[in-house]
Parts: sequence; C-alpha cells; structure tokens
Amino acid sequence: MSAALRVGIAGLGTVGAEVVRLIATEARTLAARCGRPIRVTAVTARSKAKKRGVDLAGIAWAKSPVELASDPEIDCLVELIGGAGDPALSAIETALKSGKSVVTANKALIAKHGLRLAQMAEKHGGALNFEAAVGAAIPIIKTLREGLAATGVNRVYGILNGTCNYILTRMEQEGLSFAECLKDAQRLGYAEADPSFDVDGHDTAQKLAILASLAFGTKVAESAVHVEGISSIAPEDLRAAADLGYRVKLLGVAVRTAKGIEQRVHPTMVPKSSSIAQVMGVTNAVTIDGEGIPPITLVGPGAGGAATASAVVADIADIARGVRVDPFGRPVDRLRTTEKAPMERHEGGYYIRLMARDHAGTAATIATRLAEQKISIESIVQRHPNGGIDAGQPEGKGSPVPVLLITYATHEDAVHRALQAVQRDKVISGRPQVIRIEKN
Amino acid sequence: MSAALRVGIAGLGTVGAEVVRLIATEARTLAARCGRPIRVTAVTARSKAKKRGVDLAGIAWAKSPVELASDPEIDCLVELIGGAGDPALSAIETALKSGKSVVTANKALIAKHGLRLAQMAEKHGGALNFEAAVGAAIPIIKTLREGLAATGVNRVYGILNGTCNYILTRMEQEGLSFAECLKDAQRLGYAEADPSFDVDGHDTAQKLAILASLAFGTKVAESAVHVEGISSIAPEDLRAAADLGYRVKLLGVAVRTAKGIEQRVHPTMVPKSSSIAQVMGVTNAVTIDGEGIPPITLVGPGAGGAATASAVVADIADIARGVRVDPFGRPVDRLRTTEKAPMERHEGGYYIRLMARDHAGTAATIATRLAEQKISIESIVQRHPNGGIDAGQPEGKGSPVPVLLITYATHEDAVHRALQAVQRDKVISGRPQVIRIEKN
Repeated sequence: MSAALRVGIAGLGTVGAEVVRLIATEARTLAARCGRPIRVTAVTARSKAKKRGVDLAGIAWAKSPVELASDPEIDCLVELIGGAGDPALSAIETALKSGKSVVTANKALIAKHGLRLAQMAEKHGGALNFEAAVGAAIPIIKTLREGLAATGVNRVYGILNGTCNYILTRMEQEGLSFAECLKDAQRLGYAEADPSFDVDGHDTAQKLAILASLAFGTKVAESAVHVEGISSIAPEDLRAAADLGYRVKLLGVAVRTAKGIEQRVHPTMVPKSSSIAQVMGVTNAVTIDGEGIPPITLVGPGAGGAATASAVVADIADIARGVRVDPFGRPVDRLRTTEKAPMERHEGGYYIRLMARDHAGTAATIATRLAEQKISIESIVQRHPNGGIDAGQPEGKGSPVPVLLITYATHEDAVHRALQAVQRDKVISGRPQVIRIEKN
Repeated sequence: MSAALRVGIAGLGTVGAEVVRLIATEARTLAARCGRPIRVTAVTARSKAKKRGVDLAGIAWAKSPVELASDPEIDCLVELIGGAGDPALSAIETALKSGKSVVTANKALIAKHGLRLAQMAEKHGGALNFEAAVGAAIPIIKTLREGLAATGVNRVYGILNGTCNYILTRMEQEGLSFAECLKDAQRLGYAEADPSFDVDGHDTAQKLAILASLAFGTKVAESAVHVEGISSIAPEDLRAAADLGYRVKLLGVAVRTAKGIEQRVHPTMVPKSSSIAQVMGVTNAVTIDGEGIPPITLVGPGAGGAATASAVVADIADIARGVRVDPFGRPVDRLRTTEKAPMERHEGGYYIRLMARDHAGTAATIATRLAEQKISIESIVQRHPNGGIDAGQPEGKGSPVPVLLITYATHEDAVHRALQAVQRDKVISGRPQVIRIEKN
C-alpha cells in the first residue's frame, strides 16, 4: 500500500470537525477504497481552546491557514473557513502554488475566483475539488464533470437554496406570509439573521454560476446571472399556483438558447407533476436535461454538517486515489466567455396576477391587450372572494378581485408592454404580479 | 496532449451505434475533458452488412469479440453484446488478462461474473467500468463507488426496472389489470415477448445485487436476493394503496439489519409523499440512506439507447483520464460474503387485503388473530362494493367484501401465522394478499 495522503484542515466548525471524525472512524474503509491511508496531519482554526468533540491528539496545530497551506507535511489542503476572500483565498493559492491539492466547500470563493484557482491547479498539478460547494452531498458536480462527459447539456436547473425552499413550502402548506415564514426559519436556524444573501437569490446565483460552467463549458460568471429573490411572493400566488396545477419554487436555471446561455434565478412556477415540484422543505434538487436523453434529477440534503463533510471526504478520497479531473471539467483556456442574457428577450410561459378594479369587462380588456402583443392565453380565471376560482365571469362591482392568467410561451418584453397598456387602461389596482413558468 | 485512447466496440446494436456516433461527434469535447483523444479503432458485430446509420469508415472490423479483445491496437474493450456467457464473457476475460480496460453495460454478466472479472482487472491493471449496467445514465454506480466513499450506507432501494414501473403506473392510473397492461407494454416495446425476466423481478434482482455490493462492501450475490414479481398485483390493491396514502412499486431493497444485509425484490407499498412514489412510467430511481445524512435520490432514464450510450462513453472518458477505481469500490478480497436473509424474519409494516365472507364480525375475528401474534393495526377499513371505504363496520350478508389492513412494524412470520389462523376460521374466501410496506 502506498504512503498516506496527508491532509491539513483549515476551519474546524461543524463541517471541519465532522471531516476529522469521518477520516478517523472510516480509516479502514477509506484505505481499502483508495489503496492508501488518509491521515489528518495538521489543522488550524481561530480558537485552539474550543471544545469540538473530536480527538485532535497527534495532529499538529498550524498558526494560520496560510502556514498550514505551506506545511511541507501536508499533501492536500481542506479549506472550510468560508468567505470569498482571505484568509481562505490566500491559503488555497499558497497550497495550489506549491503543487498541493485543495478541497473546499466554499461556493462564494469558487464562484468568484474559481477560474484563476483552476488555472493554478492545472499549472502546478494539484487537484481542486468542490463537490460540497453546490448541493452538499448531492453528487451534482461529479455528475456534470464526469458522468455526462460526452452528453451535451441543454438545461440544468434546480432548487439550490434550502432556506428559500423551506419558506416557500411553509407559505404554501400553511397559507402564511413570507415575513412570518422567514421569522420562523430564523428561529429554527434555517435562515441567517441577515437573510438577504439567501432570500434575494444570491446564494443560488453563485451555485448556478458554478453548475453552468460545468454544464456548458463556459467561464464561471456570477455577474452573468439574472437574480430575483422570493420576498415578493404572496400566499395568493401559491394558492393560485396550486389551483392551476403548479408550485412556486426559487429556481436557478441555466439554459442553452439560440442566442447563448441564459442564466437566471427567480421564483418559478413548475408543473406540480414534475420531480422538482415534489421537493419540499430544506431539501435541494437539480435536474439535468442532456442531449437526447430524458431528464436526470438528483435530490438530497443541500446543507448540514454531515452531508457537507460526506462530500468533502469523497473529494479527498478521489485525490488519494490519484484522480485528477480539471476543476471545471476541461482546461480553463477551453472555457468560453458568457454574457448576461437580457431578460427582455426571455421566452417562456408566464403566470400573471392582477387585481381587477372594475369586474365587468376587465378580463376582456386584459385579453385584448395581451392579444395586441400576440400573447396567447392558456387559462384565465377570476378568483371569488371566498378563494374559489371561476372562468373569468364578471362579478359586478365591489372590492378588487384577482384575475389569474397563464400564458403560452411568449417574450418577456411583450408581457411588459401588454401590462403597461393594462395599467394605462386603469382597470387594475396595484402592480401586476408576474412569475415565469418553467416546463419540465 | 497524450496519445489517443483506442477503443474497440463489440456489439453494434442501438447502444453500440450510438457510442460510435457520440465519440465521433463529441471528439473535441472529449479530448478537452480527458486531456487526450478517444478513438474507435475497431469494432465487431454479428452482421457486417447491416445498415446502422453511423460512419464506420477507417474503423477496423474484427472477426469476433475475442479477436477484437486480443487486438494489440486497442486499449479499451467496450462490450455491448449482452448475455451472461460467451462470447461477451470470453471477450472481457481476454481483454482484462492482457491488461486492457473494459467498459460494459451488461448487468447479467456483472451480477454473475463481476467478482472474478474485478479480480482480473486488479491483477492486470485495467479498469472495469459498468455504470450503464444499472439505471443507464443515472450515475448511481459512480455515486456509491466514489461519491459516498466515507459515508456508510444503511439502505439503498429503488425502482430499477422500467417495464414493471410502466405496468404498475398504467394499472394505477387507468384501473387496468396486470395482463392488459403487460400486453400494451409489449405492443409499445417496453416489454419483451417473454416478459418473465422483467415482471418476475429477476432484472431488478441482478441490478440490486450490484448496488448492494457497492453500498455495503459485500460480494455480489444474486442468489442472496429474495425475489417476487408483480403479476399478483390486482387493480384493487392499487386503489386501496391510493386510499391509504400509498403507491405500489416494484422495489429492489438492500438494507443493513442487526442480522446482516437483507436484499429483496418485491411489490412494495411506499408512502405517496416519498420521492420514489413520484416516479412514473419507465423512469428509474434509486434512494440512498447514508449514515447521518438525509436520503439522496437519483431519478432518470433506466434504459434507452442514448441514455445507455451516455453512461458508456462517460466510463470510457474516465479510463482515458487515467482514473482507476476498484470495480466494486474496494479490492475484491476486502468484500465480505453475504447470505440470503430469510424473509420470515423480515421486519416491517404490511398491507393485507382479505375477502370477508361473512361481513358481520369478520373484522373483529381478523383483529383478534393479529392481536394474538402481537401485531398492531395502524388502520383497518372495509370497502363498500361501490369502491368507497369505511371504518370496518359490518355490512350485513352478501357477496364477499374486501377488508384492508395496514399493520405497524412486525415480523413476517407473525403475519403468516395470523393469516393461517384467519383462514382456519373460515371467515374469508380466497388467499389473502400481502404487500410489504417500505417507509422513507
């Protein structure tokens, strides 16, 4: 059996401690699987004194992440500090420049600096693995990087943020508002004190940028992702979705179009019968539409100490086995540049919710304005005040009544022009709600 | 860039032809991904004259699979002949013995001879990859072999046969009988003229035996799998399942128990809300319960030329990249022997359907017999002739009326003893229907 792979771990939070524990308890299995032992030889973290519930006896303590990365007694740096900048970044750079391999769960850092780091890894011969950065233990990176080596991807999309899916699930199941569910998510530890990174879609955008690069052979570019969060979603939208055969999910979608790769994160109506619609609570899921084959969907825990550590140790095991795959599936100089696709030219179906001010005739006015923009209507319903729905019959005067529309595929700018006209007609009150539909 | 990986393909059916096509059309992508080109240099098939719609110009034609396997001009044999014996087997042996790598989609051969072939691969240094043998393009082999390197598996289960799932889906959705749906499946090409290999569960058993080996580090042993097919399932069972919150699926289940690994294939009630219950038609799905982490479910096409070819080419790409992972995840001499677990000691919940002869008092008799065996009843319902259900109230005399029971977890032998007693009581007509429940 060959010499042990010597691992240095920077960051000993929940994930780091679990990685230390797994490598120790599964030592025999890992050695059998990899043909050589894996040993944690050095670690570093902010506080040496903190109790972590794992045995660190015999493991050296480095003064800093960069010192750990320069340690000649480690072959592989595991970065679990987090954050897109230093000290995580300089530690990874130090390790890669000395030919060491790196494993990280840091999506922000990979989304921002992944290309430059991948080039360093190529140049100096180390691996750079980041399975845990997207979907934790769901093997989505490996599937795109290795499992679909010869199969062109037409679309990759999914639920990549457990916080948002938890909030949308509770809003749907209990009829609660976004604000109420967010508060609950914070109380239960599913959302941060400052939830904006999650609920505004930025976490999903970083993960999507990484998946899009792997799927389409493009350069990772968070700036090429159109991003909308879930705070505008109302319980009425979730009820309407259910009535119309849909669910609302915050999706990250990267899709090949005639005009290039479109990358977008926004609340999305998905058919209730689709695999992705079944994914509830903090669970994540990704669907891949490969050229000529039916969709493949991977579902599982997108976060959590044990799930993240599982993926980190699998990445370490690949390095121990001698597996070296280009971090983004091909050499960085083969990755193409991708631009942000303007959403005005997005094509798809739309859900539109309007508050009809004057019931009689409003549906007809709306239908006319949509027809002027050559938008075909799949269904139009007017909701009774009691929550039931009905085929857009006028109800007589009274308080505003919601009108719900589902359109066939059209252009987003056509939808905007039609709704501007409807607003000029003064037949609705408030702003129209518009949610894109993603078909499976 | 290194020298090309030279591939020889034995068998040019739908999958073989698609592999030739993919390697040609995706040549640039594959070369970028693997750091070297992949080239088909030789092929063989039964008929040289047959039109296959792919360009074989410049590719040598070998006289036989074994001749192809001995060709010094190939580095990797791709076996797509099928069948557990010769010529597939001898071709693979010939290739492995000369240090070549092998890719195969042949589940029957891997289930029967996989261990011996893996030993040959270990000894002579070639790879033996078979992602396409289970779940086609669903990356289940890679996930168990590499993605969960350090995570113990407690259970792996899934829908591994599209024919059975197609039949059960149509039976459920259209209320048809097994025989009617089978006939339709045959007409549509989803079932063979002799459907027994699929519908009796043997196809699922072979796939399960492979997954169990990878999941638990045990020797592949089809003989250790308890197998039951779906021909006994009646539309009434599917209706009852729906009423009770379940669906019926043919599952392959391998689970770690206190007494060893239990491997079984049988019709199974799964909660309607589970990921696996959502899988309809010919789609396959596998769920993995890893130690300490929520379940991971992979869903996708389990068959089809393009999906199978996609997995085959990904396996070839791994070989081109120089990746060598033990075929069953660890050296063969580290795999433990596993015995067939006697089903009498299986523990779980049960669905029982009985035809009550004398309505008044029958439910009470059944409940008493179950209580004698210490079996707790989760629900008991008596179906009205009109198809509705009702809390087991006697209906008065008449034609037999179904009584449906769901038990809490118990031992299978207790269920058998209780039902034997009920039969001796002569309160039911016909044989009781018993279906095991699998909780998620």
